Amino acid sequence: MFEFIVEATCGPARSGRLELPHGTVETPAFMPVGTQGTVRALSPNDLRGVGATLVLANTYHLHVRPGEQVIARLGGLHRFMGWDRPLLTDSGGFQVFSLAGTRRVDEAGVEFQSHVDGSRRTLTPERATEIQWLLGADIAMALDHVVPGEADRATARDAAERTLRWLDRCAQRHRTLAAGESLAGSNGPDDAPALPGAATSPPAASPALQTLWPILQGGAHVELRTEALGRMLELGTWTGLALGGLAVGEPKPVMHEVLAALEPRLPPALPRYLMGVGFPEDLVAAVERGVDLFDCVAPTRHGRNGSAFTADGPLNIRNADYREDPQPLDASCDCEACTAVSRGYLRHLFVAKELLGLRLLSLHNVRYLIRLAAEMRTAIRRHAFGSWADDWRRRYLPARPR
Amino acid sequence: MFEFIVEATCGPARSGRLELPHGTVETPAFMPVGTQGTVRALSPNDLRGVGATLVLANTYHLHVRPGEQVIARLGGLHRFMGWDRPLLTDSGGFQVFSLAGTRRVDEAGVEFQSHVDGSRRTLTPERATEIQWLLGADIAMALDHVVPGEADRATARDAAERTLRWLDRCAQRHRTLAAGESLAGSNGPDDAPALPGAATSPPAASPALQTLWPILQGGAHVELRTEALGRMLELGTWTGLALGGLAVGEPKPVMHEVLAALEPRLPPALPRYLMGVGFPEDLVAAVERGVDLFDCVAPTRHGRNGSAFTADGPLNIRNADYREDPQPLDASCDCEACTAVSRGYLRHLFVAKELLGLRLLSLHNVRYLIRLAAEMRTAIRRHAFGSWADDWRRRYLPARPR
Repeated sequence: MFEFIVEATCGPARSGRLELPHGTVETPAFMPVGTQGTVRALSPNDLRGVGATLVLANTYHLHVRPGEQVIARLGGLHRFMGWDRPLLTDSGGFQVFSLAGTRRVDEAGVEFQSHVDGSRRTLTPERATEIQWLLGADIAMALDHVVPGEADRATARDAAERTLRWLDRCAQRHRTLAAGESLAGSNGPDDAPALPGAATSPPAASPALQTLWPILQGGAHVELRTEALGRMLELGTWTGLALGGLAVGEPKPVMHEVLAALEPRLPPALPRYLMGVGFPEDLVAAVERGVDLFDCVAPTRHGRNGSAFTADGPLNIRNADYREDPQPLDASCDCEACTAVSRGYLRHLFVAKELLGLRLLSLHNVRYLIRLAAEMRTAIRRHAFGSWADDWRRRYLPARPR
Repeated sequence: MFEFIVEATCGPARSGRLELPHGTVETPAFMPVGTQGTVRALSPNDLRGVGATLVLANTYHLHVRPGEQVIARLGGLHRFMGWDRPLLTDSGGFQVFSLAGTRRVDEAGVEFQSHVDGSRRTLTPERATEIQWLLGADIAMALDHVVPGEADRATARDAAERTLRWLDRCAQRHRTLAAGESLAGSNGPDDAPALPGAATSPPAASPALQTLWPILQGGAHVELRTEALGRMLELGTWTGLALGGLAVGEPKPVMHEVLAALEPRLPPALPRYLMGVGFPEDLVAAVERGVDLFDCVAPTRHGRNGSAFTADGPLNIRNADYREDPQPLDASCDCEACTAVSRGYLRHLFVAKELLGLRLLSLHNVRYLIRLAAEMRTAIRRHAFGSWADDWRRRYLPARPR
């Protein structure tokens, strides 16, 4: 379980297979984001239909609503979401730093105010680990301290070092939970007597069902990240690792530089997850630099705004040019939006504010990124990633705004 | 084409088969409403998945946006919506009377103000027929003058008689269109040069592809309706007929009385479509009184409000009782909402304002009515409709509000 096999490489680009308790994830892979336990506007059947193999859910959001205890009593996150394939939960760190109102970080953890009801909550490394254990995703993430992409060296070092100390605490807590320690005493304000028919004690995860991945911080400072990486690898034997604190405001060339500099230092046997990255051109650039896994809300968020990824670059379906356009959104795509209806119809749905438009463009954009990852896998296995990427950029990038 | 075969009866209740250009509709049947060319929140695949065989689209809405010319140039309504099964368009009459701002009815037709852009438009019997011809649904409806359910006899007689005169004009226009008269000169303000790839002339319908059904008016006055029915049947040879102006404010017993009184007078060979009726108990009561076809926005509108039809009566999923309820929404249902997730999860989607909740409850409610119609077909074929209806009511109706 939690095995990763690199099956082909082409320069730093890799194609592999990640074995998880709920199934196999072929990499490179894009994971759609189910913020509140649902990939916005898409159902489990939709996700299976577009070929999603791994879905991310946000620990922060699920903790504040409906609460991890409710989800545990309803059978855990897989059953709650109706999703029987692999799941990953983030640590809640990123949302605390980006969404919560007032918050205070100290060595113990983060105190923050829920964006839903204003209640004061505390997220410690231990608590983040317990919440994720109750949610029961295949992959849990260690709590990290996220700073803006342009943070100076001192700020970045402070956050990276705290992240390492927190990692150690997360790993210890994960080990005691895996060893069978009960969470009975840790119930938060969400706790309530179980209903008839619900599990009487949280089913939670088991050592065979959940692994914990560390998150590397260090801002745009390569030497900080290199140092943190070394210490991270000393802290435990991991089954994967994440690169956090990138794509958070720093210029793209900086992100590319950091990825390229880190790549030779990353253990080849571990899958590498670049958090929060999800525009097509960024996926291609990151795979080129050895990244295996991605997540981002871009496909669904942009889809709801009428923006669609296509082989010829992005387009916005609200554009009046599409009013009577009988063509499919993207002729190379096999999703329902592209096979059942025309651009003219999709534009009508947006102009008429119909819910179906939000869903069809979300569905298409997720399908687009999953197909893009599949194309990259094929190109890597053919040892032709470089020429594939050149061709892909030639077609996707120069497109005039549409 | 447009053949209706009654296959079984049980008292006034009938089960039959309506053959239409785009497929067969087994009756009794419920048709979901695609107001703006989309059944709100549901895709063509969803509709196929829940077993919809006939979908209604609103002529008024499609006329004001995007315009019938746009739809015709995009290949007609079937292709526009991505729906290859039978379609019915209403005449626009009901929406003009219920939605439009200021409106003026005279013998020529209705002048009204678009609810979208405030523009002044005129709907005559000829124009309503032309618009529907361009849309190209299997069944078009004649323009009718709708009055409130409690209209007095004089008002109801005036509207019923105008509806008959308009029917004659609709039928004449439909005949000239079916005989091949071009609509080239009738382009409205929506007209624009066709794009490359679009049909250069509207594909429109053909006599083999569209039939026109009359609508019977007369309010709650049985003798008015009886008289109007006789004159309607003299005006042409129809392939079906609709009962309009019911379920528009009159008490339910009044509607039941009108249906029961009319039933023996309706030609048995014509399918009978009761417009705008769509609550489960109303479907059962109307099938009991010889009705074959129904449409209503209730399943999708109520679904979006969190209200679900179930075998044990309606429930509202927002209710706090469902917070940790692991049961399916309706254990007897086979839709995605009922098979993939729990009531607890569906409630979470509504509380968290997630789009998926709107869709899953809409999907379920439409599936519920389609399954209800299928159950009624089976009961009629077994000549056991009465006892089936008793059993159904015993379970569905007394339910306490949930």
